Amino acid sequence: MGLGSYTTLAQDTATKTAAANQVSFRLPPEAPAPDDNKPTADRTALGKMLFFDPRLSGSKWISCASCHNPSLGWSDGLPTGVGDGMRALGRKTPSIVNSGFNSLHMWDGKVKSLEEQAWGPMLASAEMHGTQDQILVKLKSMPGYVTAFEKAYPGEGINKETVGKAIAGFERTVVSRDSPFDHWAEGDESAVTPSVKRGFALFTGKANCVACHQGGNFTDQGFHNLGLKGNADPGRFAIVPVRVALGAFKTPTLRDVALTAPYMHNGSYLTLEEVVDHYDRGGDDKENLDPNLKPLKLTDQEKRDLVEFMKSLTGTQMTITLPKLPQSL
Amino acid sequence: MGLGSYTTLAQDTATKTAAANQVSFRLPPEAPAPDDNKPTADRTALGKMLFFDPRLSGSKWISCASCHNPSLGWSDGLPTGVGDGMRALGRKTPSIVNSGFNSLHMWDGKVKSLEEQAWGPMLASAEMHGTQDQILVKLKSMPGYVTAFEKAYPGEGINKETVGKAIAGFERTVVSRDSPFDHWAEGDESAVTPSVKRGFALFTGKANCVACHQGGNFTDQGFHNLGLKGNADPGRFAIVPVRVALGAFKTPTLRDVALTAPYMHNGSYLTLEEVVDHYDRGGDDKENLDPNLKPLKLTDQEKRDLVEFMKSLTGTQMTITLPKLPQSL
Repeated sequence: MGLGSYTTLAQDTATKTAAANQVSFRLPPEAPAPDDNKPTADRTALGKMLFFDPRLSGSKWISCASCHNPSLGWSDGLPTGVGDGMRALGRKTPSIVNSGFNSLHMWDGKVKSLEEQAWGPMLASAEMHGTQDQILVKLKSMPGYVTAFEKAYPGEGINKETVGKAIAGFERTVVSRDSPFDHWAEGDESAVTPSVKRGFALFTGKANCVACHQGGNFTDQGFHNLGLKGNADPGRFAIVPVRVALGAFKTPTLRDVALTAPYMHNGSYLTLEEVVDHYDRGGDDKENLDPNLKPLKLTDQEKRDLVEFMKSLTGTQMTITLPKLPQSL
Repeated sequence: MGLGSYTTLAQDTATKTAAANQVSFRLPPEAPAPDDNKPTADRTALGKMLFFDPRLSGSKWISCASCHNPSLGWSDGLPTGVGDGMRALGRKTPSIVNSGFNSLHMWDGKVKSLEEQAWGPMLASAEMHGTQDQILVKLKSMPGYVTAFEKAYPGEGINKETVGKAIAGFERTVVSRDSPFDHWAEGDESAVTPSVKRGFALFTGKANCVACHQGGNFTDQGFHNLGLKGNADPGRFAIVPVRVALGAFKTPTLRDVALTAPYMHNGSYLTLEEVVDHYDRGGDDKENLDPNLKPLKLTDQEKRDLVEFMKSLTGTQMTITLPKLPQSL
């Protein structure tokens, strides 16, 4: 589907009432899971253990949760991530919130399933710097993990597939929903302020944010070059070498966006206000800019309304209890 | 009190029944807190936020909980700690479990209150590498923290004292108790195995572990040179330059000891079995060795019994829910 049809949707959406919009912006009841990895309590519990276990890294000190910190919106609050040896990485740590609803993973979309994605940071030498053999041997050496895998995936053992499945399964439970916006969309007119309502009208109308941030998870699952000043990262182009993909990055969800500053793939904006200003300018670097970006000429009040709308997408925060980890022998 | 009297206690203890021993080995109902920092729910909640907030470090990536990981016995499972830039530190990360019962803090006892201790790792350039000014400015910039401090310490503001108090207050809630050993000491003969009971008799008798690991928290709060092979760390001597303090380190609690491998101030033993073997040999490096250490000539069964006894000191594990952290502006 090209940008034209999103624009049509946006213009159409702007004329609907909030109640009608629940059709477009309602998150499905759960993140879709593959047939061989349907969620169970045992699988989620195992995946959570793995997610919080620093022993899966080469240093034994970095866990998935070190960077995808539940207390910081499942990201890290930094412009760009931190990896092994605490060296800065090139891109902002994406929140894993609602990643179960994505069809492609990572900023450049190079990974097609969460099961596969889970291994990426564990094995990347710049990130957790583990090796698959070491990780599997380590897990098999701990009776607590042997038992947990057997309960979660009976007869499958501890292997590349079951480790990826367990972590992916846990990630699919990390969902942001039940935001003030959702309550409004479901008919509670008092759930949000007039500013939020004006912001939503701008979002789906004049500002046309919905061209990319659309659907229940507020993303088109696509890749766009937003004209960020001085960006030298090829982004999606490294995966799909066509001109339109140069400097293009995945549209992130806007759910819980108020919790995940700084913003953009390189963390170059500290606040949502700065992000709105960027779009209001129609981006900075015009070369290969997504054709949908044009100067918006928003008023200060309109900018504030857009920010208020984005803040209304902060969902009910999950209560995360730290897992007990199996003992090393 | 010198070692002589501990020996007397130990010999005396060995003849008592388990029920009688509850007097000596019962943990007080709560860790003692200074008059100006008595625990309240608001104080504990604030201290927990600070404990889990990586933004208190210079890198904004390391929190107290990065090394004092609740999922790993409030330590990190590593032989020696990891600090800023992921450089290895010189000593094992001590568990903070039951640190509220200690009168001196750090392996060398250089700090006299938990309130003061809380700042140590935050400001150490090799550890969290923060500065007090940066930390206080950062906390004051976040409305969520301003409110939380006002609730916890009304009228006191955000300053060196209240930050230390809040973290110390949270640490005092990190307590290990209600272990199988405690249940046995309280009269439940079925709470532990015969091996544990034999181990306790050895602990307080032939092996004389109780010379140092005594009282409700299984520590004499003293410093001892255990004759670890090749140890070049002066330990307590750097604080109190007397010969007996050379290479001496604080006696750690044994509560939850099964959860905090590796062992000793330098993490040189991977298992409790190796620790027991060390004491059975009477230590390795005899220079300046604590006079209480002598070869024990334990049988294999006796060694197993001592390990089983130590495992019986694993308390009921606290359920730790991750705090929501205030947003940066």
